[in-house]
Amino acid sequence: MAKFSSQARPLSESEIIASIRRRVRLSTAELRHGIGDDCAVLRPLPGEEIVVTTDFSLEGVHFRRDWHSPESIGHRCLARGLSDLAAMGARPIAAFLSLAVPEDLVTTRRGTSWIERFFDGLLALADRCRVPLAGGDTARSPQLACFDIVLLGGVKAGRALLRSAAQPGDAIYVTGALGGSAAELLALREAPSRFARITDTGDHPHFYPQPRLALAAKLAAKRIIHAAIDISDGLSTDLAHLCDESRLAAELDAPLIPIHPLALQAVDADRTPSAIDLALHGGEDYELLFTAPPRANVPRQIAGIPIHKIGCVCPRRARKPQITLHDHRGKSIPLAPGGWEHFR
Amino acid sequence: MAKFSSQARPLSESEIIASIRRRVRLSTAELRHGIGDDCAVLRPLPGEEIVVTTDFSLEGVHFRRDWHSPESIGHRCLARGLSDLAAMGARPIAAFLSLAVPEDLVTTRRGTSWIERFFDGLLALADRCRVPLAGGDTARSPQLACFDIVLLGGVKAGRALLRSAAQPGDAIYVTGALGGSAAELLALREAPSRFARITDTGDHPHFYPQPRLALAAKLAAKRIIHAAIDISDGLSTDLAHLCDESRLAAELDAPLIPIHPLALQAVDADRTPSAIDLALHGGEDYELLFTAPPRANVPRQIAGIPIHKIGCVCPRRARKPQITLHDHRGKSIPLAPGGWEHFR
Repeated sequence: MAKFSSQARPLSESEIIASIRRRVRLSTAELRHGIGDDCAVLRPLPGEEIVVTTDFSLEGVHFRRDWHSPESIGHRCLARGLSDLAAMGARPIAAFLSLAVPEDLVTTRRGTSWIERFFDGLLALADRCRVPLAGGDTARSPQLACFDIVLLGGVKAGRALLRSAAQPGDAIYVTGALGGSAAELLALREAPSRFARITDTGDHPHFYPQPRLALAAKLAAKRIIHAAIDISDGLSTDLAHLCDESRLAAELDAPLIPIHPLALQAVDADRTPSAIDLALHGGEDYELLFTAPPRANVPRQIAGIPIHKIGCVCPRRARKPQITLHDHRGKSIPLAPGGWEHFR
Repeated sequence: MAKFSSQARPLSESEIIASIRRRVRLSTAELRHGIGDDCAVLRPLPGEEIVVTTDFSLEGVHFRRDWHSPESIGHRCLARGLSDLAAMGARPIAAFLSLAVPEDLVTTRRGTSWIERFFDGLLALADRCRVPLAGGDTARSPQLACFDIVLLGGVKAGRALLRSAAQPGDAIYVTGALGGSAAELLALREAPSRFARITDTGDHPHFYPQPRLALAAKLAAKRIIHAAIDISDGLSTDLAHLCDESRLAAELDAPLIPIHPLALQAVDADRTPSAIDLALHGGEDYELLFTAPPRANVPRQIAGIPIHKIGCVCPRRARKPQITLHDHRGKSIPLAPGGWEHFR
């Protein structure tokens, strides 16, 4: 790990920027000028469109410093944006980070500072996904840490996967398994000390979510997907977003929804919420939800990630719920969006 | 002004997003899909490069709610990003706003909410500069309001104005007049009630800075500029950034530096800092600082904005200061960066 400084005083803004510049080694042909000017300069590939997403990571809302390691917070910050690119079928081009942190996070203690460890987590994922950190902003925050990640991606013109492109009769698919992140968060709430701000990037859907970039690229290349969205707010909420934008309704088969082993463990312990609740409404799974024509040749797995058909899209009807869930006993129940929403 | 809602409860996240979507009417051929998907989709013009900048506006750091009207905060937020585009000689393509605000700012009182008035200020400037708001993020903040503005611009390939492109012997120019924003901030500090959170967008360099987009476009088209930067942190600091990136030094003639009338008034009152201090070190002027070959035909004004030659760029020399200021009596003094820096 490259050190910012070995002094005990807080780093100045220009020292922080200089240190980030030294650590960012990845460069690409599309990035003409990165950190160091009023703007970064990118040269898009001919025939491509640019997709753009921004995502806040706020202390006390998206993470807690007493629960999450700085490395996990950095990883999660970038993963949120990369997952949005995956949902568009786009390839990452560049990342930008605006950071505002209180003074003690840029102060070196025992040879390292909080912000260095944050960048260790963020840049490890950036390097793995081949996305250069191309700029951003740095400010002192009076109290809480606050990060805004901006991702730019490239996608062949007209081929971006939109929420609004679902067709009546489409089958609904989901990648991986759901509810794992919510289950891990539940366990974290109950026994924070058990996790001791983990830095192990293994199978931890809450601490180290894996954006489905490679899988999305392979799926997009097959040109079988109609509409797509990533599951950041929870299946029920994100499927409602897709239905809203496509002006359609949906039916889900509860027994077909893949539930993450960590969520199933929650059920063994006879807890509330149940495993299916976690899979339906738990957010931050960062799996992909997409629709494809009913006879499309959708692979059962890509690069080891399973893909499950969980329902279908249908026309909206007056007095019918937007999403209907068919449960294990064949009973049909309306499924209201129950995932994360701010100000609620 | 379009209303978000007339209820006394806080708006939900989806209500806020729906309301912003209704209010954003500007659309351009380059913006294929705006608010409503995981990412916005932009189609760059052939032969153009994309420039990107992000800027935080944080409560307690960049603005105070008891000093600034919501309209001024919205205007200033967007102006920061637009000024960065101007400094690259770029044309705005799209803006993205990540916002995190406490609940009371999205609660309607007397028919309107704080956040609606914020968007009035931001969108008025966006419409005037023909830049569509294409996306962003919305979150509840535990305490303080926090905004991150992201601007994308387009510039002919290879023509972006860089900080690093100054040449020894170049003349240094500045647009408009300096120190006005710092002088107005000084007056605001001394008598906040005098300003009563003004919403008058007239000549208020602090409350309503005017990004130099039109002027920059005309200058860039002449192809006489070598290097450029906007004056956001103060002349002494931003000129040092330009010298750092170009690996050069600079000499300034104090009598040639255009001082804003508001800063001159500060001198009449025999105050500290002096008018020249405000012009040298006061931030947030959002004027352009650029270099051009000594014999370049630089206009004396463009669209009513004066352009002044204030010094020249020269090679770095050991034991010589990076910036030398020649004062009114011909005395040479080293000029250290004295503008804004976080964590100092």
